[in-house]
Amino acid sequence: MRNIKLTIAYDGTSFKGWQMQPDEVTVQELLEKRLKSMFKQDIKLVVSGRTDTGVHALGQVANFVFDSNIEVERLPLAINAVLNEDIRVLSAEEVDMEFNARFSAKKKTYKYRICNSLIADPFLNRFAYTVPYKFDFKKLDEIGEILEGEHDFAAFMSVGSEPYSTIRTIYSFEYEIIGNLLEIRITGNGFLYNMVRIIIGTIIQVISGVRDIDCFRRAIKSGDRNELGPTAKASGLFLEKVDYTDK
Amino acid sequence: MRNIKLTIAYDGTSFKGWQMQPDEVTVQELLEKRLKSMFKQDIKLVVSGRTDTGVHALGQVANFVFDSNIEVERLPLAINAVLNEDIRVLSAEEVDMEFNARFSAKKKTYKYRICNSLIADPFLNRFAYTVPYKFDFKKLDEIGEILEGEHDFAAFMSVGSEPYSTIRTIYSFEYEIIGNLLEIRITGNGFLYNMVRIIIGTIIQVISGVRDIDCFRRAIKSGDRNELGPTAKASGLFLEKVDYTDK
Repeated sequence: MRNIKLTIAYDGTSFKGWQMQPDEVTVQELLEKRLKSMFKQDIKLVVSGRTDTGVHALGQVANFVFDSNIEVERLPLAINAVLNEDIRVLSAEEVDMEFNARFSAKKKTYKYRICNSLIADPFLNRFAYTVPYKFDFKKLDEIGEILEGEHDFAAFMSVGSEPYSTIRTIYSFEYEIIGNLLEIRITGNGFLYNMVRIIIGTIIQVISGVRDIDCFRRAIKSGDRNELGPTAKASGLFLEKVDYTDK
Repeated sequence: MRNIKLTIAYDGTSFKGWQMQPDEVTVQELLEKRLKSMFKQDIKLVVSGRTDTGVHALGQVANFVFDSNIEVERLPLAINAVLNEDIRVLSAEEVDMEFNARFSAKKKTYKYRICNSLIADPFLNRFAYTVPYKFDFKKLDEIGEILEGEHDFAAFMSVGSEPYSTIRTIYSFEYEIIGNLLEIRITGNGFLYNMVRIIIGTIIQVISGVRDIDCFRRAIKSGDRNELGPTAKASGLFLEKVDYTDK
């Protein structure tokens, strides 16, 4: 048996997220179906973490164990040939049998794109969230300072999820302004359910002047979801990278 | 009565082109329907030129005559509020009654995006044509020199169209390589049916080494469509700009 690590990109617009769901098209379902028919064996993908409906991936990672002599370098082209155009396997490599895309992950980086414009760009609808308000970009530096580090992010989580712990470390918070596009990039050792989208929904309110910046400090202290803004639209969110080394 | 010039952007993926067609959703149909219901009068759009199914526009121009006192600056937001997200009115201005988006046009610029990659980028599927072959970019300069100027482009036209004349002037042919993206920009006084896509389909064959560069010269001389390559995919084509002055 061999253990294969795949790096995968997908436009999440037409998928009901990553995970298998009855009667819905998910990325996992589509990939497993193709792999099964290619290799004539049952294949189960382990993913670094599920993405929600409409969320995109630039570098999602999944692994699967199978029995085949195929050269691993040939896998991406072979798999892509039978996949919908909105999912692409970017690379494949053989890894130790101990490798587990979920449990071996050390760091994840998410990117969120906000189009700050009165008129939405029809070419960014699927890949950004358009917000027409005037932004105070200076506040982003202070927000980064508040969020970076190890904190209890219990407030930054959608109700219904019950993680073992709500302590997470944010290693870096960066932003870039490219024309009318604001890109925010957050790297952490893990993220609670909807954590990035709640951070972004709150940031949009803070830099638009409708919520005060101290709400982040209060939310970290109190664990109260009500201190924070709405969960931002899925279309702006990209899982950019999953790191498996501490470096 | 007032004459209004609109500049419009659209993601052409889900439209059957610009023009009204029975039982199909077109950009014209959608816009006219919205304008009619907003202004309670029959509105007929005159467009600079139809775009085909799947072709995009960054700066399409259309005009219409109507009877209303609305401030013209308010038109884009008012129209966009009732439009699908894949069409946006970028600007509106009042123009002379003589202005006609089609007949007053002096220059048009089309952009074509080719993603030169073994693995298609799922975020560019809708907005580029992915070609996996190795390109010889140096040939593009010579192709530009052949195409620029006034020529009989009869060979560069899909069968079925019968224009008054097949003489056109190409003012400029430019290209830019951004990562694995090749963008080609062609400005001319007008283009025959499918002319840009036939030029691009031929360029792809020439820079991939499967067709010799002299085919362009032979096609201009002979008017023979068979000298040229296939019509390139609509998804890579953008009507970028329509100019109404000679400058």
